[in-house]
Amino acid sequence: MTAISPLAPERFPDMPVIDGIRLASHACGVRYAGRTDLLMVEMVPGTAAAGVFTRSLTASAPVEWCRDAVAKGRARALVVNSGNANAFTGSVGVASVKRTVEGTAKLIGCKGSEIYIASTGTIGVRLPDEKITAALGDARAKLKADAWHEAAQAIMTTDTYPKGATRTAIIDGTTVLINGIAKGAGMIAPDMATMLSYVFTDAALPAGVLQDLLSKGVDKSFNAITVDSDTSTSDTLMLFATGKAGNTVIKDAKDKRLADFKAKLFDLLLDLALQVVRDGEGATKFVTIHVSGAAGRKAARKIGMSIANSPLVKTAIAGEDANWGRVVMAVGKSGEKASRDRLSIRMGGVLVADKGEMAQGYDEAPVTAHFKGKDIVIEVDVGVGKGKATVYTCDLTHAYIDINGSYRT
Amino acid sequence: MTAISPLAPERFPDMPVIDGIRLASHACGVRYAGRTDLLMVEMVPGTAAAGVFTRSLTASAPVEWCRDAVAKGRARALVVNSGNANAFTGSVGVASVKRTVEGTAKLIGCKGSEIYIASTGTIGVRLPDEKITAALGDARAKLKADAWHEAAQAIMTTDTYPKGATRTAIIDGTTVLINGIAKGAGMIAPDMATMLSYVFTDAALPAGVLQDLLSKGVDKSFNAITVDSDTSTSDTLMLFATGKAGNTVIKDAKDKRLADFKAKLFDLLLDLALQVVRDGEGATKFVTIHVSGAAGRKAARKIGMSIANSPLVKTAIAGEDANWGRVVMAVGKSGEKASRDRLSIRMGGVLVADKGEMAQGYDEAPVTAHFKGKDIVIEVDVGVGKGKATVYTCDLTHAYIDINGSYRT
Repeated sequence: MTAISPLAPERFPDMPVIDGIRLASHACGVRYAGRTDLLMVEMVPGTAAAGVFTRSLTASAPVEWCRDAVAKGRARALVVNSGNANAFTGSVGVASVKRTVEGTAKLIGCKGSEIYIASTGTIGVRLPDEKITAALGDARAKLKADAWHEAAQAIMTTDTYPKGATRTAIIDGTTVLINGIAKGAGMIAPDMATMLSYVFTDAALPAGVLQDLLSKGVDKSFNAITVDSDTSTSDTLMLFATGKAGNTVIKDAKDKRLADFKAKLFDLLLDLALQVVRDGEGATKFVTIHVSGAAGRKAARKIGMSIANSPLVKTAIAGEDANWGRVVMAVGKSGEKASRDRLSIRMGGVLVADKGEMAQGYDEAPVTAHFKGKDIVIEVDVGVGKGKATVYTCDLTHAYIDINGSYRT
Repeated sequence: MTAISPLAPERFPDMPVIDGIRLASHACGVRYAGRTDLLMVEMVPGTAAAGVFTRSLTASAPVEWCRDAVAKGRARALVVNSGNANAFTGSVGVASVKRTVEGTAKLIGCKGSEIYIASTGTIGVRLPDEKITAALGDARAKLKADAWHEAAQAIMTTDTYPKGATRTAIIDGTTVLINGIAKGAGMIAPDMATMLSYVFTDAALPAGVLQDLLSKGVDKSFNAITVDSDTSTSDTLMLFATGKAGNTVIKDAKDKRLADFKAKLFDLLLDLALQVVRDGEGATKFVTIHVSGAAGRKAARKIGMSIANSPLVKTAIAGEDANWGRVVMAVGKSGEKASRDRLSIRMGGVLVADKGEMAQGYDEAPVTAHFKGKDIVIEVDVGVGKGKATVYTCDLTHAYIDINGSYRT
C-alpha cells in the first residue's frame, strides 16, 4: 500500500448522525481483496436529490443512469463500488447498472429512479455486478447511522486516506447538519464535478433548490481543483436532503434565509475538494494559485488552470525551485488576454516579478524558503481587467509516475 | 550531462554546403561553460526570409523583433544564443535585442531588419548581451560553409543530441538543396511553431512563397508534436532562401512546379519535428497517435493532443501498460464530438476496443509486447465523421521530473 499523503489532514472528522441516513460498507470482492469495496446508503422516504456529473463525452453507464434519475429529484438509496468504473463497457455495462438498480429497489421497496449507482476504478473491464447484487442483502443488514468513516473508506481507489467533512447551518432558526464524503486522487480535472462525492443533510429543501445550490457551489470547489488535468469518466457529486430537521421549507435558492446553509455547504464542498487535491497522486506540495487582473472570471480560471496543469510548473514546485519564468510561460500559453508588460507575480507573498520583468531588488531567499514548505501560494495579476479566480493543485513527482505506470498490474 | 536519448537517430546527417550560407559557432559564456552557446549565420545579399512564431501572449523580445523584421522578407544574418531566453525581461530585454541587431548589422553592413535574433534558455533573467556583441567579430571570423553539426550543437539547451535534416528537390528541372537544424526537448506544445528551427535553401523563391509554404508545412510537423503540453515563449521556425541555385523563380506557392520542393520541405520539417519529440525530456518511448472518424481535421487534432498530453496516458506508456481505458478518458475530456458507442482503438495494430467496449476475443499479449518496444502506435476512430489527424509525442518518465525539478540550479 502507498504511504498516506504528507498533505493529509491530521484525522478524519467526527461526523454526526444525520436523521434519515444510514450507511453500510461491505467487502464484495469486485477487485480488491482484504478491504471493503461496496458502500450502501439508505435514505428515508421523501429524501430529495440533486447532482452534477462529468462532462466527459465518454461518461460511464452509472453516470448516465444517475443523470436521468436525478431529474425526478427523489432518492432512497445509493450503491457505490470501488475497483471497477464500469466505464466503456458498452451494453453490458448498462445491463450491470440495471441489475444493480433493480436488485436494490426490490430490496428496499421503492422505484428504480430513487436508486443512485456509482462505480470507480479501472475503465473498460466488465463489472462483475453479480458480486454486488449478491451482497446487497448482507450490506443492508449492516446499515447504521454512524458509519461515515467506513463509508469514506469503502469508496477509495488510489486515495491514501478517507475524506469527510461536516458543518452545521441555521435555516430560519432551525439547526441543520451537513455531512459529506469524497474520493479521488488522480484523473482529477473536473469540468463541473469530479470523482465521487456525496453530501447529505437533514434539511428540508426541494430538489430544485438543492440542484441550484449544488451547481453554484461546485464552481469554487470541485471545479477549482486539478491534480493532473485528466477528467474522469465517472465524476459525480450528489446532494441528498432527508428533510428530518423540520426547518421551514424554502423554495428559492436565492432566499436570504438560506444564506447560512449556502455558505456552510460551499465551505464543506471546498473542504472536500481540497482534501482530494491534498491526496493528489504523489503530491508533496499543496498549491494555491490566485489569479487577478484577468478579462473576466472565466479567463482568470483558465489562466489559473493553465498554470496549475503545466508539467513544468508542477515539476519546478516538486523540485522546490521558485521558477517564476514557467508561470509566465503558462500564462502565455493559456490563450487568455494578459499584458506581458503589466504582469506581476507573487510567491509566498513576495513580489517576484513586476511590470513585465523581475521585481526591483528581488531577493530569492525568502521565496526559496517558502518553496521548501508544504503549502505554496502563487499570486498572478495579468494586468488587463478585474477577473479573479483561485485554483488549487499539487506538485508532480516521481510517485505520480510510479502510481500510474503500473495501476492495472 | 544527461545521457543521449534512447530514441535518438543513429547519427547526425551529412549536410551539404548551401550556396550563400556560412555558419559559425562560438563560446561566449552567456550561461554555459565549456561549450558553444552562440550561432551566427551569414547569408548572401538577396536572401529571402519567412517565419512562424509562438502564439504565446508572453512572447519574448527576440520573437517580437523577428515577427516585425520578417514582414520585410529579407535576411542577411541570424544570431542565436542558448542559455538565456531573454523572455519576460521587459524594456531591458528589448534593448538587448536592439544592441545585438545593431552590432551585427554594422559588422555585416546591412539593415537592422535583415538581422534575426533568437535566445533560448532560462526565462526572466537579464541577457548579458554585452558578451554576445563582444563576440560578434570573433564569430564572424570563423564563418564557414560546412559547419551544420556545430551550428545545431550551439543552440542546444536540454537537448541530448543536435538535430539536423537535409533534402534535395527539383524545381522546374533545377536541383535545389534544403538543410534544417532545430533545438527543443521540453516546453514543447507548439501552437504554430515550436522551439527554434532554421531551414536554409539555395532555391530562388520570393519571401511570400516561402511564407505560404512554411505556414502550411508547420501544420503537419511542428504543430503535430507535443512533449509536455507547455508552449514556449520563444518558439521560432524560419526559412531562408539564398536564390543561388538559379532555378526558375516561381511566384505562387500553389504552382505545380513547386510540388517536389514543397513535398521535400514538408518532409524535412516533419523529420526535424520528430527529432524534437525523440529528444523529449526523459523520453523512453516515441508515440504516434492516429485519430480518425472525427467531426473535422481540427477536432481530430484536438482529440489527438488530448490523448498525447494526458499524464495518465503518458505514464501508462512509460510503465509499458496497454491501458486503453485512459485513451477513452482522454477522448472524452477533449470536448470534441465522439461516439462512445462507436469508438474503436487499435494499439500496435491490434483491435483493442470496438463499438464502445473491449474487442471480442481481445488478447492483450501482442499489445503488451508492442508496449515493450520503443515505437508505440495508437489508432483511435471516434466514429462520428471523416476528420483525421496524426499527433506525435513521447512518454512521461521520472527523468522528465529530474530534469525539470532542478533546471535552474
